[in-house]
Amino acid sequence: MTTALAVRYTAAHTLEIGPASIRPPGPGEVEIAPAYVGICGTDLHIFHGSMDTRVKTPAVLGHEMSGRITRTGPGVTGWQPGDAVTVMPLRWDGDCPACVAGHQHICQHLDFVGIDSPGAMQQRWTVPVEILVRLPESLALDRAALVEPTAVAVHDVGRAAVRPGERVVVVGGGPIGLLIGLVARSGGADVRLLEISEHRRSIAERMGLSTWNPVVDDVAEAVGAWTGGAGAEVSFEVSGAAGGVTTAVDVLGVRGRLCQVAIHPRPREIDLHRFFWRELTLVGARLYERADFERAVVLVADGTVPADLLISKVVPLAEAAAAFDTLDKGGDVVKILVRCA
Amino acid sequence: MTTALAVRYTAAHTLEIGPASIRPPGPGEVEIAPAYVGICGTDLHIFHGSMDTRVKTPAVLGHEMSGRITRTGPGVTGWQPGDAVTVMPLRWDGDCPACVAGHQHICQHLDFVGIDSPGAMQQRWTVPVEILVRLPESLALDRAALVEPTAVAVHDVGRAAVRPGERVVVVGGGPIGLLIGLVARSGGADVRLLEISEHRRSIAERMGLSTWNPVVDDVAEAVGAWTGGAGAEVSFEVSGAAGGVTTAVDVLGVRGRLCQVAIHPRPREIDLHRFFWRELTLVGARLYERADFERAVVLVADGTVPADLLISKVVPLAEAAAAFDTLDKGGDVVKILVRCA
Repeated sequence: MTTALAVRYTAAHTLEIGPASIRPPGPGEVEIAPAYVGICGTDLHIFHGSMDTRVKTPAVLGHEMSGRITRTGPGVTGWQPGDAVTVMPLRWDGDCPACVAGHQHICQHLDFVGIDSPGAMQQRWTVPVEILVRLPESLALDRAALVEPTAVAVHDVGRAAVRPGERVVVVGGGPIGLLIGLVARSGGADVRLLEISEHRRSIAERMGLSTWNPVVDDVAEAVGAWTGGAGAEVSFEVSGAAGGVTTAVDVLGVRGRLCQVAIHPRPREIDLHRFFWRELTLVGARLYERADFERAVVLVADGTVPADLLISKVVPLAEAAAAFDTLDKGGDVVKILVRCA
Repeated sequence: MTTALAVRYTAAHTLEIGPASIRPPGPGEVEIAPAYVGICGTDLHIFHGSMDTRVKTPAVLGHEMSGRITRTGPGVTGWQPGDAVTVMPLRWDGDCPACVAGHQHICQHLDFVGIDSPGAMQQRWTVPVEILVRLPESLALDRAALVEPTAVAVHDVGRAAVRPGERVVVVGGGPIGLLIGLVARSGGADVRLLEISEHRRSIAERMGLSTWNPVVDDVAEAVGAWTGGAGAEVSFEVSGAAGGVTTAVDVLGVRGRLCQVAIHPRPREIDLHRFFWRELTLVGARLYERADFERAVVLVADGTVPADLLISKVVPLAEAAAAFDTLDKGGDVVKILVRCA
């Protein structure tokens, strides 16, 4: 490699490619050569300029990654150059009330790596060993870039406490919605996925997930027929739309649990009477814990997550900006990976 | 007794007193002489005419009651004339999906006795033995009329899974809010009650519950100081107001649980981002189960619930209509009982 490159967000709708800031790994750090970096919804929010008060420009994005260690810092043990890794991109302060209560992943001063500090969309990247997660050699690195969003889905399904045999409605079939459907099904749930996009429904169907199109299908009637009038035990709101929230409430039977996954920047109207009447539960879910990440590695490695169906496209680092534009326009894509090497 | 009397709701803001429809108890039934009947918020809703599509007039209201059995029907065992009783005023169909799942108290075709079928505000009342709950002879019958609302509070505190040492904010200090505060405290929680009415705050303080006035006190600051910046573990929304919902969300720390108790006829705006960010949970709670009722008898009988402080007034049957008017005007009352005997 002549010069290591990095893609940087510099202003709304603008990504620039230039030399990476190479930093030799210090004590407790390693340097990684990122192989693949997935582009996620939060990256798109940043790209839109919607998070400019939080993100310090120029910013190297990227937190869904896979790669190999290139160098280890002084005193680092257990890790060698060449090791295949991903990262759990969270750093916490350890002493805020959330951390003290054992919920470090929602630390009140969380450093989300790739948003609040430099991310993986570059050819050399120095990170602390605490955030490393080992990848099995059998797992191809392109597929391994899906471990992070899979960990989100594992966490969400865990927060909803989905049990075998339960009927689960996933509202929204983007990458996270699809992954939630797969993870819930792998735990023995009977899943229906609601998605407007024909392309995404077809991906879901190829994964063996049954789908409804909420624009065409009468969801209330379909859920009634499916559940014998009882309603579903669990729903996941992954659409981010006001109507999605209403649907995720309406499909639930008595004591049903709604897991709130999508980001809703504005307050949403919720039928609290329904929560009272049916004794429903709404559970917020954010990010993941270490155990979720370890589980996600297994699910991607063993094929429970059919990564090939989720990866719509792989582009070189030089075409990252174009990939953001493609995702921005919507259309027939699920996940796009940036190839860094 | 010459003629047994009954109070009947006949139209909005109208209660009429007249002869009770005495019905000898059939197989599996008993006849009760109600002693005291509490007036609750739902009774007031009916009185306003807000539930006329559900309530068939003329309707005998009253589901918070105490009394003694006067006669037993053929084949009834285990109950004798003179036995002190209250009722758990729920009848379910037993075969709807809610009942099959073991949640009979939220049966999809629930008969709420005193709303959907004749209630206790009369001098003779025939009911099935299944709904009877035995009262200890040591418990005065006026105090025993508080068992039903106490069962609501026991159920709510159970739904929120309040643990010893947790910090609990109760939003709204009506009868149910006060009872939730008492029940949570008896389980070892540290309770703060938010209430606008000075009278209700003073009742709470006399019960040893700390209060804040949300109109005057800076609740966010007070909760921050109280919890060392962590936020409360649990909140109860018992106000029924839009602002109460917002407060009940805002006071919670990471993984906090909001128990939704009050009835909100209209959808409310909820900050779902906060639910996501702090991984909050919202739990709907309605009515009670048999175990809640049995527990409530103990809490009223042993003085955990200081019934004398909650009972503002006792009026004879002939003054029931005036009592409804008094409650309607608000003012310095908590619970009013109607004396039937």
